[in-house]
Amino acid sequence: MTSQNPVFIPGPTNIPEILRKAVDMPTIDHRSPVFGKILHPALEGVKKVLKTAEGQVFVFPSTGTGGWETAISNTLSPGDKVLATRNGMFSHRWIDMCQRHGLDVEVVDQKWGEGVPADRFEEILTADKAHQIKAVLATHNETATGVKSDIAAVRRAMDAAGHPALLFVDGVSSIGSMDFRMDEWGVDIAVTGSQKGFMLPPGLAIIGFSPKAMAALETAKLPRTFFDIRDMAKGYAANGFPYTPPVGLINGLNLSTQMLLEEGLENVFARHHRIAEGVRKAVAAWGMELCAARPELYSDSVSAIRVPEGFDANKVVGHALEAYGVAFGTGLGDVAGKVFRIGHLGSLTDVMALSGIATAEMVMADLGLPVALGSGVAAAQEHYRQSAAALEKAA
Amino acid sequence: MTSQNPVFIPGPTNIPEILRKAVDMPTIDHRSPVFGKILHPALEGVKKVLKTAEGQVFVFPSTGTGGWETAISNTLSPGDKVLATRNGMFSHRWIDMCQRHGLDVEVVDQKWGEGVPADRFEEILTADKAHQIKAVLATHNETATGVKSDIAAVRRAMDAAGHPALLFVDGVSSIGSMDFRMDEWGVDIAVTGSQKGFMLPPGLAIIGFSPKAMAALETAKLPRTFFDIRDMAKGYAANGFPYTPPVGLINGLNLSTQMLLEEGLENVFARHHRIAEGVRKAVAAWGMELCAARPELYSDSVSAIRVPEGFDANKVVGHALEAYGVAFGTGLGDVAGKVFRIGHLGSLTDVMALSGIATAEMVMADLGLPVALGSGVAAAQEHYRQSAAALEKAA
Amino acid sequence: MTSQNPVFIPGPTNIPEILRKAVDMPTIDHRSPVFGKILHPALEGVKKVLKTAEGQVFVFPSTGTGGWETAISNTLSPGDKVLATRNGMFSHRWIDMCQRHGLDVEVVDQKWGEGVPADRFEEILTADKAHQIKAVLATHNETATGVKSDIAAVRRAMDAAGHPALLFVDGVSSIGSMDFRMDEWGVDIAVTGSQKGFMLPPGLAIIGFSPKAMAALETAKLPRTFFDIRDMAKGYAANGFPYTPPVGLINGLNLSTQMLLEEGLENVFARHHRIAEGVRKAVAAWGMELCAARPELYSDSVSAIRVPEGFDANKVVGHALEAYGVAFGTGLGDVAGKVFRIGHLGSLTDVMALSGIATAEMVMADLGLPVALGSGVAAAQEHYRQSAAALEKAA
Amino acid sequence: MTSQNPVFIPGPTNIPEILRKAVDMPTIDHRSPVFGKILHPALEGVKKVLKTAEGQVFVFPSTGTGGWETAISNTLSPGDKVLATRNGMFSHRWIDMCQRHGLDVEVVDQKWGEGVPADRFEEILTADKAHQIKAVLATHNETATGVKSDIAAVRRAMDAAGHPALLFVDGVSSIGSMDFRMDEWGVDIAVTGSQKGFMLPPGLAIIGFSPKAMAALETAKLPRTFFDIRDMAKGYAANGFPYTPPVGLINGLNLSTQMLLEEGLENVFARHHRIAEGVRKAVAAWGMELCAARPELYSDSVSAIRVPEGFDANKVVGHALEAYGVAFGTGLGDVAGKVFRIGHLGSLTDVMALSGIATAEMVMADLGLPVALGSGVAAAQEHYRQSAAALEKAA
Repeated sequence: MTSQNPVFIPGPTNIPEILRKAVDMPTIDHRSPVFGKILHPALEGVKKVLKTAEGQVFVFPSTGTGGWETAISNTLSPGDKVLATRNGMFSHRWIDMCQRHGLDVEVVDQKWGEGVPADRFEEILTADKAHQIKAVLATHNETATGVKSDIAAVRRAMDAAGHPALLFVDGVSSIGSMDFRMDEWGVDIAVTGSQKGFMLPPGLAIIGFSPKAMAALETAKLPRTFFDIRDMAKGYAANGFPYTPPVGLINGLNLSTQMLLEEGLENVFARHHRIAEGVRKAVAAWGMELCAARPELYSDSVSAIRVPEGFDANKVVGHALEAYGVAFGTGLGDVAGKVFRIGHLGSLTDVMALSGIATAEMVMADLGLPVALGSGVAAAQEHYRQSAAALEKAA
Repeated sequence: MTSQNPVFIPGPTNIPEILRKAVDMPTIDHRSPVFGKILHPALEGVKKVLKTAEGQVFVFPSTGTGGWETAISNTLSPGDKVLATRNGMFSHRWIDMCQRHGLDVEVVDQKWGEGVPADRFEEILTADKAHQIKAVLATHNETATGVKSDIAAVRRAMDAAGHPALLFVDGVSSIGSMDFRMDEWGVDIAVTGSQKGFMLPPGLAIIGFSPKAMAALETAKLPRTFFDIRDMAKGYAANGFPYTPPVGLINGLNLSTQMLLEEGLENVFARHHRIAEGVRKAVAAWGMELCAARPELYSDSVSAIRVPEGFDANKVVGHALEAYGVAFGTGLGDVAGKVFRIGHLGSLTDVMALSGIATAEMVMADLGLPVALGSGVAAAQEHYRQSAAALEKAA
Repeated sequence: MTSQNPVFIPGPTNIPEILRKAVDMPTIDHRSPVFGKILHPALEGVKKVLKTAEGQVFVFPSTGTGGWETAISNTLSPGDKVLATRNGMFSHRWIDMCQRHGLDVEVVDQKWGEGVPADRFEEILTADKAHQIKAVLATHNETATGVKSDIAAVRRAMDAAGHPALLFVDGVSSIGSMDFRMDEWGVDIAVTGSQKGFMLPPGLAIIGFSPKAMAALETAKLPRTFFDIRDMAKGYAANGFPYTPPVGLINGLNLSTQMLLEEGLENVFARHHRIAEGVRKAVAAWGMELCAARPELYSDSVSAIRVPEGFDANKVVGHALEAYGVAFGTGLGDVAGKVFRIGHLGSLTDVMALSGIATAEMVMADLGLPVALGSGVAAAQEHYRQSAAALEKAA
Repeated sequence: MTSQNPVFIPGPTNIPEILRKAVDMPTIDHRSPVFGKILHPALEGVKKVLKTAEGQVFVFPSTGTGGWETAISNTLSPGDKVLATRNGMFSHRWIDMCQRHGLDVEVVDQKWGEGVPADRFEEILTADKAHQIKAVLATHNETATGVKSDIAAVRRAMDAAGHPALLFVDGVSSIGSMDFRMDEWGVDIAVTGSQKGFMLPPGLAIIGFSPKAMAALETAKLPRTFFDIRDMAKGYAANGFPYTPPVGLINGLNLSTQMLLEEGLENVFARHHRIAEGVRKAVAAWGMELCAARPELYSDSVSAIRVPEGFDANKVVGHALEAYGVAFGTGLGDVAGKVFRIGHLGSLTDVMALSGIATAEMVMADLGLPVALGSGVAAAQEHYRQSAAALEKAA
């Protein structure tokens, strides 16, 4: 039997029917005016989701990783210094990319499970009197650890230090799912992809540039062509791309942003928080702990759950797939084997979440972990019931 | 948000991705040989699912109700006597149809929750020395009450009475989900639809005729054109239909039968039984009872669950839809307001079933019924775990 | 290679992308209020397409043939007399159906290629002083011969005769493609299907009943259950069906009527006329003739083209499919082998029509018919050019 | 009305139904073994289409342009010298990319309409005794001019010069449509995309590396991360990607290569040649000329057609879209306004091609160009008829 179970990976998400149909387009001429009528509303929609009025949005046939490369290669030059924290696999990879492109990365290593250390950043930036640091890199939501960092605090740290560096934020697994405020937080480059909060198939890097980031273009000497936003901007002005655009995905993006904005971003965030809370209630009922060190770090898009010492967390993921046809996320890098992850972003209902929680219980019981069947489910049900009633009252 | 929750109605079922794509066809010429290459394998596939070697299969753009009309109008004449039991809404409707077509129906009323009374049938048939009864009508699975009847016993009763009547079986919600043996049980006409065990959208009546039923064509005087199997048979012989065939659905039927036969019918039945058992364990854990009177009557495609006296079961269905976006079935006819139904047939995994059970718990708790959250889920999980492990061992 | 050629059969038509997606729905609960929000707008839309304010519309999981059976079985009784013309395969079949249901059909045979003889009807109706004739049957567009009849003239004939019979019109291949006015023409029952002017897959019988036809229900004694509009009306009132509705097709019907009404029915008819004229110009350029006897009989949804005496027209259809993967229609009944048909209704552009005309030329040349390559194409191109320019000027 | 006309742009092509459905996948876990079962057969399929036994294939979520960047950044270092011809917009852009990445490009300018000058290359390479030239860039099919170059001749020139440079070939609009032999021609890097011969939506860069190109990795100093084939190779070995893979497109690629290989590559090429010849016969009948200078340069995937001096070719493209809803390609760069292009690659039948030719005739007549309606169509029909008959005889 073809399984119709939802996935519980932290992206790509389950894709709403209507978005699958929007992406699945017959071929149109991407050099005709028809394409402009898809492209420009999509870009405008993304701006609203990013909460930027002044920024410019670029969309590449690529992924979040390509978005990072777009960020650094359009603003920096070989030898430029950047400041970054490593607190999970994705922040690690971004640092690695910078180094491979000849940047000089000042790395602040954090325990995996912690967030971006704004106070430590403030010290370093304050000490950087010569303003050699050109950019500060922050991962809003570490997908590997389920840790949400406080980007507003990073901005405050930069301001307190009176430092002019650019602020680049990896919002791949937060944007469209958790509160993100590009202009208010002074984010210079925001990076995400199509397959997370936008609930689309993978294939798009989505990037916002502030006016200050745009200005950095003038001096940026890292080589680039595919990811050059000057070519892209020129293309957009003529209703096109510098090469063949992924028309279907952009059509999907247009509809996705409409859906998010019609629902209301605050409602979208509240929906994610509600679903995530249910998962966290279940984890607590199991007597287990999250990788994220403290509640204020808890991510609303993914939970990384620590298994008992000595137990291989990958077994949970493997057995869930084999025995029940359900996909959870494995631990990556430093926390490989120590955590398994439940993705709870994008198109996911309370009802679907309960099936994921119930599956995790069966899997853990099968593997001999001391988890009472139904215990996490009951805790999550109680949360979903109460919050559903509250929603109904509000409506 | 568009909900992506599965449905838990007793048909139409959740449609597998691959079958949706098979049905969603561009237009082809239904009078060209191409159509024959879809039609004939579909008919052959249905024969195997019905377990008939000698029967002929007809497929109409219609529903199960149209299948019943096909059965009676092609074999009987006004004034003909038929024997039937009323033990639920669907058997009731079939009786009503017979009466509206001028047949003389001898109705054996049963408590809703009971099955077809083979022993009572034997008495009546034995008493019918003149063989005035031309057909015996039996509903294999009463979708309204979740009651499975013993068709083999009905056949034995007819044989014991030495009665030559035709045996017509409503297998709408059993065929493709529960054991059905057209030839072995001496079923003369078997009726089903596309939207149950075949996991397709509604729109097809699917009917098998035994050679004896085909012979009854000669004398049948009920008027018919749309449902006339003579025209249909002539059409099939020329790779066509007497009118425009629903090509996409027939393409889906072809693939559906392939899927069922590749999985193996016994495995399909075992899969349904396993999912159904989980639901029944949950019901027991809730301290509730099924409408079906005894375990041997329990249906593997739908469970009708009795709510406490004085409580309106329709509230369960209404609240599930409004608060959680989940569809259960209401009670119909005599058991309206007394039961709600969980459909568990077709494309449904243990994981999906758990989300339905968990939802039912939240709904009942919301409505003040004394159901402990997680209790039914835990009972079902235990069953699914054990049976999953057994499956793995077997494989 | 999978062919992506359009079809040129007189229905089912090429289905617009957007309608295929509307039909291809996941399962919803057809007993929930959600279904009513699809059903009622669809019924209202059909009423507007039929141009009826007072009529009631019924939609069955069936085909046009089922629509005919709905018409007669809900209004007539065995032995009732009806008046009809046989001027093609579809009018012939309707007559045959009436006879099989025990009606007494007064048949006026017409040469195939002629229309409904309103003057002859007037004579017969005038002579029927006792008003034994209960219904007059007229085929608006004979799909087999490409002949459009004058329904307004039939109504005038009935009025001139002062005859109270009901007027039943087969509009299967005209409604949604050619001018049809249910109320203005005093049509009592209008019958069509989903797969013609509505551009949907086959699977729906669509029927409009006038108040007078509804009144005839009271006395109608033909047996019916599946096609009983009383059950259907009761179902609609409760947002449902008396059995499982074909939800996806009804969702498609809802969108289809919106599309037709947004385009404007007169524009839809003009579009069909324009495409049809191009085909007719091509036929004239080939030196060939239509089956339809005179220009006022020319159908805008299908052209039946006479081949030279002694030549088997079926060869055109067979060779087109084998050599070029293009579907045309064969001749049926009296004109089998004498005509081949080009369907030009529904979703078909001038550009697509030209490919059909060009294919017909290649096919006829291959088969040795004296047709100059490009001759018909050029004639059609000239017509399409001129009319496209006129359209642009108008817009 | 939604138009259902085919597109006649030189990619993206019309997408076969079956490939659209393969791409339109629900989300699966791209880190599970399931993905490997899609990925590896797709890569193997591409190898066969490239006709390479020894090469390695990489697939990126990108476009052909990203494929070029993959080629140079994984093998070359800043300051490296490369040899290239500029004979159209796409070769121009590749040269531009090289320059932006700090390579030293020796450009041989050719008249647009000419191919890669193998003899001139031989002179230059022979003169480069120090082997400073690290790579020779050749565009197999210049999409802007419809010119096919002789890659085997380029290889012979390199061999005659005894030069060890790498040979990079842009096969974006040739691979899968026209004869391409990676191993036999000694191609070191072959670049293409999903949206041309593979008939998929845009979104994939598809690149083959010879062992010699793989060896060049060791010394390549151009910065790269997203396009780094080392990360990609490591990912593939673990059934994954270094970031989120475009699973649906890769699923489509797997099926696309199966389709091409089942049809047989030589049959695929012959099919393209047949369709292209028909278009060229039409152009000749119109008394017009191709941009490509000589028959041996004629591309089988796109024809660039010169319009009379003083006439703006863009009008043809604009008017075709507005008046008839048909997309042709405009001229680019040096030939902007001088040519319009008819794409004839991928999923396109003779019947569809005729509709494009017929449309071009209407458009040109509308714009006052001296083209006789039907003239090009007749010439193409004659070619298609003869070649269809020949095909049938062969089969």
